[in-house]
Amino acid sequence: MLSILEEARQEIVSTEIIVAAIAEDVEPDDLREAVAAGRVVILRNRNRPRKIDPLAIGEGLRTKVNANIGTSGDEMNIDHELEKLAAAIDANADTVMDLSTGGNLAEIRKAIIENSTIPVGTVPIYEAAVNCRNADRPVVDMDPNELFEVIEQQGEQGVDFITVHCGVTRKVVEDLLTGDRVMDIVSRGGSFHAEWIHKHKKENPLYEQFDRLCKIAKKYEMVLSLGDGLRPGAIADATDRPQIGELVVLGELVKRARENGVQAMVEGPGHVPIDDIPLNIHIQKEICGGAPFYVLGPIVTDVAPGYDHLTSAIGGAIAAMSGADYLCYVTRTEHLSLPDAEAVREGVIYTRIAAHAGDIAKGIPGAWEWDRDMSKARHELDWDKMFDLAIDPELAKTIRNASKPADGETCTMCGEFCAVKRIKQVKEDPTDG
Amino acid sequence: MLSILEEARQEIVSTEIIVAAIAEDVEPDDLREAVAAGRVVILRNRNRPRKIDPLAIGEGLRTKVNANIGTSGDEMNIDHELEKLAAAIDANADTVMDLSTGGNLAEIRKAIIENSTIPVGTVPIYEAAVNCRNADRPVVDMDPNELFEVIEQQGEQGVDFITVHCGVTRKVVEDLLTGDRVMDIVSRGGSFHAEWIHKHKKENPLYEQFDRLCKIAKKYEMVLSLGDGLRPGAIADATDRPQIGELVVLGELVKRARENGVQAMVEGPGHVPIDDIPLNIHIQKEICGGAPFYVLGPIVTDVAPGYDHLTSAIGGAIAAMSGADYLCYVTRTEHLSLPDAEAVREGVIYTRIAAHAGDIAKGIPGAWEWDRDMSKARHELDWDKMFDLAIDPELAKTIRNASKPADGETCTMCGEFCAVKRIKQVKEDPTDG
Repeated sequence: MLSILEEARQEIVSTEIIVAAIAEDVEPDDLREAVAAGRVVILRNRNRPRKIDPLAIGEGLRTKVNANIGTSGDEMNIDHELEKLAAAIDANADTVMDLSTGGNLAEIRKAIIENSTIPVGTVPIYEAAVNCRNADRPVVDMDPNELFEVIEQQGEQGVDFITVHCGVTRKVVEDLLTGDRVMDIVSRGGSFHAEWIHKHKKENPLYEQFDRLCKIAKKYEMVLSLGDGLRPGAIADATDRPQIGELVVLGELVKRARENGVQAMVEGPGHVPIDDIPLNIHIQKEICGGAPFYVLGPIVTDVAPGYDHLTSAIGGAIAAMSGADYLCYVTRTEHLSLPDAEAVREGVIYTRIAAHAGDIAKGIPGAWEWDRDMSKARHELDWDKMFDLAIDPELAKTIRNASKPADGETCTMCGEFCAVKRIKQVKEDPTDG
Repeated sequence: MLSILEEARQEIVSTEIIVAAIAEDVEPDDLREAVAAGRVVILRNRNRPRKIDPLAIGEGLRTKVNANIGTSGDEMNIDHELEKLAAAIDANADTVMDLSTGGNLAEIRKAIIENSTIPVGTVPIYEAAVNCRNADRPVVDMDPNELFEVIEQQGEQGVDFITVHCGVTRKVVEDLLTGDRVMDIVSRGGSFHAEWIHKHKKENPLYEQFDRLCKIAKKYEMVLSLGDGLRPGAIADATDRPQIGELVVLGELVKRARENGVQAMVEGPGHVPIDDIPLNIHIQKEICGGAPFYVLGPIVTDVAPGYDHLTSAIGGAIAAMSGADYLCYVTRTEHLSLPDAEAVREGVIYTRIAAHAGDIAKGIPGAWEWDRDMSKARHELDWDKMFDLAIDPELAKTIRNASKPADGETCTMCGEFCAVKRIKQVKEDPTDG
């Protein structure tokens, strides 16, 4: 059976391409060409039990937003996860990732996939690690086959994309462990691989057996999201040798995935000083053959725990402007705890605002027009229309209604001195001059 | 009596310069040179009744944050304003502006100046307009002398800096009224001047009598903040002819202020698409002889009412990185209502985060080190130190304490799978390999 990538290369404009092209307001054949070149990926597992629309991510398309949900060893209530899923979908996330590490993982994932109307991603090594723990074996003694089995099971279950830390190679880990990073590794998947490699003195099985991984991915049409296990977790560590060393490996693997007929995207940092973000995006695009870039944040300062939905929105907007295609949200609880449903909702909206600010700069069709329509409504003092066009109509209404102006056309900030209203009158009354 | 600018030009390292230099961790003579050149201004009215430290703003210095407070016709409780002032100071704002337009303005301003430990700015035309309204005369029929009298009174009262819309000239207003802007004018001060100019067919008195304005400013050592009455209030209007036309006039007035021995800074947009922000900063610096740039936002999308503390923090961070010296906060209530004390507090912290992200990029002394120290604390899993270093320790503690991990060293996001903890163990236990 041909994969989405192989069909696109054979100039077949598949149903997936057509549906995604309509959603993005682009020509189907242009989208097909971008998919064929690997500059765009289409998320949609063959086995997805609930019918969902395929989602296109990449060059020239609207910047997408992912919400991470999932349990941990400390918080493992399946109902809470379904609440978070609903909050993410309600806030218009494009995808969710189930990063559960607590409770019955297969059951939680099944419930999330069944209830999700948007693509679902996972990090399979989490389940492999939890399996070890449940069998009272050290995670570091995991047999690589266990990981491949989990990947196969998740593909069969309908997962649309998986993060695989294939770029955490022996060489990269050695550079890391002998280097002078402040934060070493902050990626859970990265740390599992690094521990394993360090203890067993062997190469990363996901790198060594990359073709085996591709075979499973192709069978279920899972997109590989090549994880950045060495992403910097501190401003001080940004854009260093381990990070870029791993990125070079990921560039090689993008090429090999494509040769295997498998779609691949690349994950990126992390904590990055604001002026280093464009460089990080440009080098990824160069090294990875234009593969879609999926960034976590970037978080632009380390000193604001409780505000990392903001620090990451600043970084995400600059990343999107610079060419990042897909932003993973960060919530206000990052570095402090697992988020609840309200933090999920807020995180999605913050990241959508960042993505949209980037889309205006990128010239994505419809982005600029949305702002123009809002400003026209403001100019007309048409509050109903302003609320309709607001990214979060309910919040905008709540704030306005909490402080009612005497003159219903204005707001309590300026009241009768509303500049918009005054200049409108000047322009409308030619006798005034 | 020599002004701060004149003393600096005569190579006098005044007390103001020394105090400000210590606060900024720069050499006093370097700061004196920057003040002499007009690339840095020092805020400190001669008549300031309460002793406060002079504040330096400009090139090479930490990016400053202003909080706008003040009443409106709809909300005019003096106690609320003092609460907002306390919230702004508590959140470490560098300055406040009293933008009151409701109640007894002189009394409110007196209370704010008396209670403020940080410099206070105003927009004198608001009081002149309110005086007209209180006398049942149309604001548009204001006698220019009334405005100059208000400026004199405010200088005498101890106001440290004033926004004056001197650049809203006849030519600029004509360009605006015959142009095709979506939002025309969104600045209250700008709209008063535009109406007056349009009705009376005369030049802006603050432009025409600029030397008179400078004389008052010099007498009290008030810094002129040259307002951008034509700042774009819509993404669609950014960087257009009226905006840049006004900026060119402001560049001329910076030069004339300096010739008069008066310190001047320049105000900037507004609503600006993210990729246009660096250009806006660079052209201001070029045209205005390196004068400090004070930006409102910039807000990077129009569609997020209720989240404009975020949209402006995104823009503010990019502006600061690009060379803006002073960020005016925007709160979550922008475009909807006057903020309350909690919105003020939040707005200051958001803007400080943006300014700090910019300062890391600018290489301001101490900026990068703060982040490094936080990351070292994270690496050590030293929660007390993390809270100490957090920009908002109380919020960080509250979030963490709401979700207690089983293992007190980690947090509930990763629990036992904490990557930081695992890699620390790998590095600390050489026998593990």
